[in-house]
Amino acid sequence: MRRAEELRDAVEAYLRSLTFAPELGALEPALRYSLESGGKRIRPVLCLAVAEAAGGDVERALPAAGALELVHTFSLVHDDLPAMDDDEERRGRPSAHVAFGEGVALLAGDALLGEAIRLALTYDDPGLARELVDATLGMIGGQYRDITGDDDDLEELHGLKTGRLFAASVGLGLRAAGLPEAEQVPWRAFGDELGLLFQVVDDILDADGVAAQVGIEGARKLAGDAAGRAVERLAALAADTSVLGELVDSLAVRVG
Amino acid sequence: MRRAEELRDAVEAYLRSLTFAPELGALEPALRYSLESGGKRIRPVLCLAVAEAAGGDVERALPAAGALELVHTFSLVHDDLPAMDDDEERRGRPSAHVAFGEGVALLAGDALLGEAIRLALTYDDPGLARELVDATLGMIGGQYRDITGDDDDLEELHGLKTGRLFAASVGLGLRAAGLPEAEQVPWRAFGDELGLLFQVVDDILDADGVAAQVGIEGARKLAGDAAGRAVERLAALAADTSVLGELVDSLAVRVG
Repeated sequence: MRRAEELRDAVEAYLRSLTFAPELGALEPALRYSLESGGKRIRPVLCLAVAEAAGGDVERALPAAGALELVHTFSLVHDDLPAMDDDEERRGRPSAHVAFGEGVALLAGDALLGEAIRLALTYDDPGLARELVDATLGMIGGQYRDITGDDDDLEELHGLKTGRLFAASVGLGLRAAGLPEAEQVPWRAFGDELGLLFQVVDDILDADGVAAQVGIEGARKLAGDAAGRAVERLAALAADTSVLGELVDSLAVRVG
Repeated sequence: MRRAEELRDAVEAYLRSLTFAPELGALEPALRYSLESGGKRIRPVLCLAVAEAAGGDVERALPAAGALELVHTFSLVHDDLPAMDDDEERRGRPSAHVAFGEGVALLAGDALLGEAIRLALTYDDPGLARELVDATLGMIGGQYRDITGDDDDLEELHGLKTGRLFAASVGLGLRAAGLPEAEQVPWRAFGDELGLLFQVVDDILDADGVAAQVGIEGARKLAGDAAGRAVERLAALAADTSVLGELVDSLAVRVG
């Protein structure tokens, strides 16, 4: 069983080794720039850890993990555009549109989504690509609510904007491991708690969302409760879930 | 065998009947606005006509046809954005970003691509979605060359920007009809000539591209030659290709 840090290294190596559609030509550097920006790789690591804990092979799950990171990166590139959040920096570097121009960043985002689906379609089971696309559409629905201020229901907004891709990270890991659908249910229940934890932690760090609604202390309690439930879900699984427990801890500790 | 006009009606009815991911919420009108803008529906009609001529069922090919039109529409919505071609009108109506704002148009384009893949993934054969995604990436590569002026090779640019999705229209029709890959080759050769014809006609009408390179008369000759080869390809197929012949004629007549 590989530790989370080893899985992260595997993700980084895999992303660096990716070849893109040759027709993209000189657009490719814009994809690589955004992809190799030192993110935490939480989604792909979660996917790999779930796949291995569920009895699957890490190597076999790498394309699914890569697809998740590409979808996440696509959403960041488009989110940063002036027409959206207008963020000029991303992780301490110029955003893609600042580095390459708006038109190129737009197309790079489009291409990242296309390449993500292409990776998900390398599996015989079309269910992987289906789940990824459904999650992507949910995420887009969340982004729409975010930019239009259609955010009466913050829980729904964040559930869509970040929760759906989190849930898909667990789902794709299970599918890549070949776990029958009937056996996936308790694993997915774990993923839902982890996704909730991630969102609440994010809100605490940004002092918005749930943290703005119920206050920092209230949000800390929500995060702690979600972490507790996630650990309980893991304990109920007849599998070595030590790495997944490590992921829960590393999320929770950020607001410890 | 349904005439092209009947197939077009079937496409329109199908597109109107589409349901989108419910999570898109109030973003949906922006998708419908762009999709129901009175385009010629050349790609989906070609897909249906190929499917029927190859012995398939039109109804069964409708999701593939719809997916092609959604990818085409996604590309138009993003192409019209100020960061790209900055077109305020599309088919006599305000472009999506003028009607809904830039951020919403950006997300609507993303969602149209996602919904297109979702439609392609309704088939058991993942080859349909794979071919659609590959064509989409080629198209994006063409758009990149177009906006960056990386257009030394105009033929390559247009082959990517319009040719790839044209070829996929034939390919998806054949796949939806369940034609074995070995038998697809002569049909795809027809599609290549039709795609070339479409591009040259487009250049003649816009007085750019090939028409600017070799002059209008030269381009007319190229279009006539491509139409002739397309008709020859059809004649070599052991199938009722009358509707496909009709499509060749209707393209060629635009510059008659």
